Amino acid sequence: MTYLSKIGYSSAKETTNTFSTFNCLKNEPNCEIFAVATIQDAKNAIALAQQAVKTFSSLPEKVRFDFLNEIANELNNQRATLIEMYCKESSLSVARANTELDRTIFQLRNYGEYILKDDWNRPISSQPENVSFQIRTQLHAIGPVVVFGSSNFPFAYSTAGGDTASALAAGCPVIVKAHPMHAGTSYLVSECILKVAQEKGMPEGVFSHLFDDKYEIGTELVMNEGVKAVGFTGSIKGGRALMDLAAKREAPIPVFTEMGSVNPVVFFEEELIDNSTDWASRFTASISTDAGQFCTKPGILFIPNTDAGKNFFEVLQSNLQRTEAKCHLHPRLFENFKSQVSQSFDWIETNKPYHSQPTIRLVQQDQFISNKHYQEEFFGPQAIAVFYDSKKDLELLISQLKGQLTFTIIGKQAEIDSSQSIMQMAIERAGRIILNGVPTGVTVCDAMVHGGIYPAASDSRFTAVGTSSIYRFLRPVAVQTSF
Amino acid sequence: MTYLSKIGYSSAKETTNTFSTFNCLKNEPNCEIFAVATIQDAKNAIALAQQAVKTFSSLPEKVRFDFLNEIANELNNQRATLIEMYCKESSLSVARANTELDRTIFQLRNYGEYILKDDWNRPISSQPENVSFQIRTQLHAIGPVVVFGSSNFPFAYSTAGGDTASALAAGCPVIVKAHPMHAGTSYLVSECILKVAQEKGMPEGVFSHLFDDKYEIGTELVMNEGVKAVGFTGSIKGGRALMDLAAKREAPIPVFTEMGSVNPVVFFEEELIDNSTDWASRFTASISTDAGQFCTKPGILFIPNTDAGKNFFEVLQSNLQRTEAKCHLHPRLFENFKSQVSQSFDWIETNKPYHSQPTIRLVQQDQFISNKHYQEEFFGPQAIAVFYDSKKDLELLISQLKGQLTFTIIGKQAEIDSSQSIMQMAIERAGRIILNGVPTGVTVCDAMVHGGIYPAASDSRFTAVGTSSIYRFLRPVAVQTSF
Repeated sequence: MTYLSKIGYSSAKETTNTFSTFNCLKNEPNCEIFAVATIQDAKNAIALAQQAVKTFSSLPEKVRFDFLNEIANELNNQRATLIEMYCKESSLSVARANTELDRTIFQLRNYGEYILKDDWNRPISSQPENVSFQIRTQLHAIGPVVVFGSSNFPFAYSTAGGDTASALAAGCPVIVKAHPMHAGTSYLVSECILKVAQEKGMPEGVFSHLFDDKYEIGTELVMNEGVKAVGFTGSIKGGRALMDLAAKREAPIPVFTEMGSVNPVVFFEEELIDNSTDWASRFTASISTDAGQFCTKPGILFIPNTDAGKNFFEVLQSNLQRTEAKCHLHPRLFENFKSQVSQSFDWIETNKPYHSQPTIRLVQQDQFISNKHYQEEFFGPQAIAVFYDSKKDLELLISQLKGQLTFTIIGKQAEIDSSQSIMQMAIERAGRIILNGVPTGVTVCDAMVHGGIYPAASDSRFTAVGTSSIYRFLRPVAVQTSF
Repeated sequence: MTYLSKIGYSSAKETTNTFSTFNCLKNEPNCEIFAVATIQDAKNAIALAQQAVKTFSSLPEKVRFDFLNEIANELNNQRATLIEMYCKESSLSVARANTELDRTIFQLRNYGEYILKDDWNRPISSQPENVSFQIRTQLHAIGPVVVFGSSNFPFAYSTAGGDTASALAAGCPVIVKAHPMHAGTSYLVSECILKVAQEKGMPEGVFSHLFDDKYEIGTELVMNEGVKAVGFTGSIKGGRALMDLAAKREAPIPVFTEMGSVNPVVFFEEELIDNSTDWASRFTASISTDAGQFCTKPGILFIPNTDAGKNFFEVLQSNLQRTEAKCHLHPRLFENFKSQVSQSFDWIETNKPYHSQPTIRLVQQDQFISNKHYQEEFFGPQAIAVFYDSKKDLELLISQLKGQLTFTIIGKQAEIDSSQSIMQMAIERAGRIILNGVPTGVTVCDAMVHGGIYPAASDSRFTAVGTSSIYRFLRPVAVQTSF
């Protein structure tokens, strides 16, 4: 069977330009065939979305809440089928698949519930003095949104993931460009969304789903003047390319890219003296789980150059060495990781294809400062450790870092309280500061900020996770009425 | 005397590259000489601002409120001097100068008061289930902001205007690139700000003020990685150039440009039958006041092709023809306007230099649709009228329009209520809908939206006027604390 793109409620015509996904654990391609969409398919999906936004954005919030909730129900109903496809396309475990699907379902319900609040669209009324009018302002849907599925979260940051859920909650139709590494999972999820949309009588074009394993469709979607915003989770190179495209449009649009981050972690001495083993164990998991393929994986650890620090490093290193080699999502991501690691370190061979050995590498301060390569994200189960001798050292090391999604500080309360300059540097660089925890695990809640300073994200003023992510896709309109 | 740029609290070195301003009413250059800043001056101002943001953004809100309030007081103290310079540099009236200064003073106080509210920085706390941490999020200053003074509001949208007041309220240091057409006014205002900043012990670099009558300094300010946001009010060409520059930076930044708009007005039949004379009188003032040099000047009027509509048009046309010719701000703006008008219409000569005659020109539907020139902003006291025969006509005409700052509808309540498609088209195109009023006069209040769809503004999600404009310069940071 060949899987076809969905333009609203219709399937696109079959084309001879096809691709398939790959099972790294079995080291073989999956059997499903996906037909690449045409530019005309993309144009048609956008035209439908432009029509759909007029009614979809004006629906009572209760209707959009029902829609999101029913998508969540349908995903849950299709759990077994979804998870089978997810696992063979991502080589991630069934347990991870279930956790991620639960999160996706929660996210849809959570964003749906949020718009039931009276003030979700930020109404403001003003009755200025000395004038004979009043002004009432509220937020309106920005228009059709394009969502690019991410490689590492086939459920939670892809087809029915955070970008889609927040855009639909805001009243914006969504066009998904399926990630080619998990096109089958994306297709099954899109079927759930479209089934519910049709049953609930949503306007055609509220959701479309396009396949392409190259860049042509993505380029059309970002450049087409009918599209009003873009959500993307992936590499800096990919995200920046979309930002640059959007900036060249006749009317530029916001592009929310959530990209690379090395998620620095600062360890303080006293805390390591007391709880070294515990932190070594927690950071072993945080670095190595699911082959470290998380945007919030801790990538750089700043450790005091003391007995406690050295001991912590040795325990962590030993833990990681004893951790089983991990399978990557896709041969291309594995090759990228291997090639990046090999530029600076010895590559540790494993006996399974596409697997890599969790590890942490020690880098000297001066090397870290002079070689920018060490400050880049490694999208796999590896971290870098740098020892520091003084707070001045530490500040110099941190000052090398670009924008981050997260910045973690591990220390006694007194150590944190007496490090205001470090805290200030963290705030200047990241969207989320973690005190005494690991950065992996981005909880969906109102206060979450999953975003940060470029190149971690395109726009530090918005989050990609949590109910505030809805505000990416809304714009205020004031109505001034005379009396 | 040669006026010098201010780098923090110091004057820049004198250079031989100078310019002066021009008095259109007297048809002669003003006597003041302004020395163009160097690239190194710009770099120094940015470096100071980068240092200043650390302390300035962390000051108690009460301190920033006092600072803004005291700037307002100082502007009021210097009123006579400021207004003399303003009038000779802009050729606007003393009455207008006073009104605009009052507005500027109000704006500073209003934004200062806003940040005294407990929740101005949008604190959010979450205590998610099944985890052992809480997350507290609030907004933080984005960093140094560059403000480009506007040609048409030497006080309210320039040196101590809306962009500066909102950035300072947010905790961001400001670097002003003075508008070369009113560099003297800008200098005097900058002296007020710097005097107060020094007296109040603000960190050096919280404000700097640079002269340049070309593009070199502006380019450095927008491209320098130390700058984190830009505010600009002016032409589409100028605003887009800044957007394009910022998009090419290593780390792109938000550029808030408030640019051109034709501010369409739809008139409905029944209201014109009853109140034609009143509306003709109000729109005469709205089109012609201060030579129509307002970003919200009504530029395109859609009028019913009926006896009432024709009568309204004739009264309005006759009113405008009888209105005194108006003086433009600057010879260059006058020449631009004259050249643009002359491309499509007969130019009406007046007997005073740099003056133009208020007027409204009738354009046929098919001409309006086929010639995009008619849909562009005329930055002077001229409007275009197009008659429509049916609602279908009207929708076709509106569908030609790009993004707008404002969209005005004049009609009986019943006419407005029965025109939901027109209202929808207005919301899709503009940031502010005016029902039965004129678009000129942008009241500073919480609910104001002075922004809109490109090319009226660079980012429809933000306003340039009102307390919400503060949010342009803030970003959320979450702090996740374990317990």
